[in-house]
Amino acid sequence: MHAVDIIRRKRDGGVLSAPEIDAFVRAATHGDWPDYQVAALLMAIWLRGMTPEEIAHLTRAMADSGSRFNWSDLPGPKVDKHSTGGVGDKTSLILAPLAAACGVIVPMMSGRGLGHSGGTLDKLEAIPSFRVALSEEELRATLIKVGVGMIGQTRDVAPADKRLYALRDVTATVESIPLITASILSKKLTEGIDGLVLDVKGGVGAFMKRRPDAFALAESLVSVGRANGLRTEALLTAMDAPLGRAVGNALEVIEAIETLKGQGPKELTELSIRLAARMVQLGGLAADGAEAEQKVRSALSSGAGLEKFRQVITQQGGDPKVIDDYGRLPTTPSRIVLRAESAGYIVGLHAEKIGIAAMRLGAGRNRADDVIDPAVGVVLQAEVGQAVKAGDPVFEVHYHDANRLSDALPLLREAIEVGNDPPTATLIVWGEVTE
Amino acid sequence: MHAVDIIRRKRDGGVLSAPEIDAFVRAATHGDWPDYQVAALLMAIWLRGMTPEEIAHLTRAMADSGSRFNWSDLPGPKVDKHSTGGVGDKTSLILAPLAAACGVIVPMMSGRGLGHSGGTLDKLEAIPSFRVALSEEELRATLIKVGVGMIGQTRDVAPADKRLYALRDVTATVESIPLITASILSKKLTEGIDGLVLDVKGGVGAFMKRRPDAFALAESLVSVGRANGLRTEALLTAMDAPLGRAVGNALEVIEAIETLKGQGPKELTELSIRLAARMVQLGGLAADGAEAEQKVRSALSSGAGLEKFRQVITQQGGDPKVIDDYGRLPTTPSRIVLRAESAGYIVGLHAEKIGIAAMRLGAGRNRADDVIDPAVGVVLQAEVGQAVKAGDPVFEVHYHDANRLSDALPLLREAIEVGNDPPTATLIVWGEVTE
Repeated sequence: MHAVDIIRRKRDGGVLSAPEIDAFVRAATHGDWPDYQVAALLMAIWLRGMTPEEIAHLTRAMADSGSRFNWSDLPGPKVDKHSTGGVGDKTSLILAPLAAACGVIVPMMSGRGLGHSGGTLDKLEAIPSFRVALSEEELRATLIKVGVGMIGQTRDVAPADKRLYALRDVTATVESIPLITASILSKKLTEGIDGLVLDVKGGVGAFMKRRPDAFALAESLVSVGRANGLRTEALLTAMDAPLGRAVGNALEVIEAIETLKGQGPKELTELSIRLAARMVQLGGLAADGAEAEQKVRSALSSGAGLEKFRQVITQQGGDPKVIDDYGRLPTTPSRIVLRAESAGYIVGLHAEKIGIAAMRLGAGRNRADDVIDPAVGVVLQAEVGQAVKAGDPVFEVHYHDANRLSDALPLLREAIEVGNDPPTATLIVWGEVTE
Repeated sequence: MHAVDIIRRKRDGGVLSAPEIDAFVRAATHGDWPDYQVAALLMAIWLRGMTPEEIAHLTRAMADSGSRFNWSDLPGPKVDKHSTGGVGDKTSLILAPLAAACGVIVPMMSGRGLGHSGGTLDKLEAIPSFRVALSEEELRATLIKVGVGMIGQTRDVAPADKRLYALRDVTATVESIPLITASILSKKLTEGIDGLVLDVKGGVGAFMKRRPDAFALAESLVSVGRANGLRTEALLTAMDAPLGRAVGNALEVIEAIETLKGQGPKELTELSIRLAARMVQLGGLAADGAEAEQKVRSALSSGAGLEKFRQVITQQGGDPKVIDDYGRLPTTPSRIVLRAESAGYIVGLHAEKIGIAAMRLGAGRNRADDVIDPAVGVVLQAEVGQAVKAGDPVFEVHYHDANRLSDALPLLREAIEVGNDPPTATLIVWGEVTE
């Protein structure tokens, strides 16, 4: 099976056989194909696409390129959630404890932020001493004791994806539904889960800017997840403005804790409940959606979710006192408030621009090896649809470095869209793929 | 100008600007882009194509990546011919002396054979001591004294093409009209010529199997040649059966000399005259096509073409006595005759299979570093359209090694197509692109 023949078949719009896909993934894992052949095939896949069967096989082969967790000896359903990424999305910190409080085992493996998108690991690491690098035995102990563990990718998870992702980034082959699907699900398949709830975001702050693209990605993810034996569902959610009010790692941890205390912003609270309820239902712990949602709401109002988060922090080496004392989290001495320049209605708070501004402040990474500042970020003081007068506060910017602040401010100004008429109210969940 | 942005633009079907193409060619020449980025762009070009303007600029940039010859101080038109490659195509050895005998200066830079296709350099090197590696000064002296020089590519000719070609070969991006056009013409532009006659072959033994593809390539070559200031014309010729009767280097030299003596096969003679006449006409040495053809026929019948070939051989260090004594050329002690197995008409002599068989005998290269055997080859003893009885000779195989012979024989048997009815007569020149 020659590399050139496999590349040629896909170049000509053909369907790759399972042995051809296996050969490609083995070669990507072990370096048997030079980078230029991998890159040529990635571009051919980008332009020619793949059938659902090809994507499903590619996903499985990539998952099998490294080791997989196996929790089948642990009693209870294992379900995770994955978001395609956005700005201010701290739902994982809220829903994982809530779902665990309802009996779901959540072996959650998350990533770091890149570009305008945040990452769950960066948020968790804003909690002093929190360890995301658990060994398999430590994670097992955490799942047994707490029911939820939140870790980073170990070196041995889907090594094929690591090589492919690095190449895609430098060859303009990132935005491909087959390649995105295989990248996301190959890692999730290694988690040893039975079910997966996907939060596929569409909008200016999402990877998929256009809703039809987000829908197509959701369909691909759900069909490929199921083809690989994973009970999979997707919610399609809006990512035009940031989710919640906080953007920045420690700031988002505070907002997540507030939400677990029942004091979070409404949309963030409702989306977290809805995603957690899906996890409960997929895990077979409720007869229907209504019962699942009821269980999650109880876990929230009783404080069981908050308690579970406290246990996670403790178990993973973090300082659980942050829950009652936000002053123990990293913070900045310097704040500045950005105000509306004219009266009207806020018709948009551009998530991508706010995300990039937060990155420039130090909250995120432009390149994978950038070091982040957990304290900095942006807190929204107004929301979309709200009437404002000139001078009303819109953003509170938490910063350390005045040079970085001046890099971020123009984007934040651009992010504020004020109009004469109130915008049409939109739903945060605008679709779902459940069958 | 980032590599990823350039790749993305072509991936999305956009048109690359001149500075973007320049950046790509510079990077390909100097290695500033890693191979995987070059490969990704090549695949995007393969799948998305290029406009005539993009191809013209790419060609010019590739030509300018190394040095160009300049013969503007030599009086007389400088015109070359280029064939897209086939089996048994020794026209260069015939038409270059003929055109030079008519006053055309022919600074011909040729390539070596690869796969089933032969190469002019390999044929020339079958002549004992013939040197194809002339310095620029040696070539200049040859052009002044003889009017024709036949050389290989110097290391400094279109270095961008060398890197791109090597990558295309291993990334399934060879068969792209934009990339083929730029590869062929970038090298021809460096020859310092005013005019170029192209022999674009279509058929089972050609690079372009289908005539519409050959036509599209001819149109691209002519338009891009002209956009770069080269008077360019193309003949479209058939390459279903070998051209002439000899396939193999020394055997083809003999056939070329026979043709220059006026004793060559009719089709080979006529095509060589037609191509040489185009060179004479493009060089402005005849008022019209009829006059140009008359001049070439005179050069053939007077022996001036043969005399010119003798001068070329002498000037380039070869043994000119081969012209009168074929026994001075490499030859094989062993011959075998393949005969028709049934009576009927020969409806096909499959050029590609015969070309691969000759390669297996040692006449060609499977890989660029294979060493060739100048003596071996195949001589056709029957031609397409001829009636045969069982037992009539079809091929005389000249071989050195019995193992190689047994590798070649099955393909040669397959190459003989016998039918009950005579095939429709076809023209060797089936089209042209002249305006």
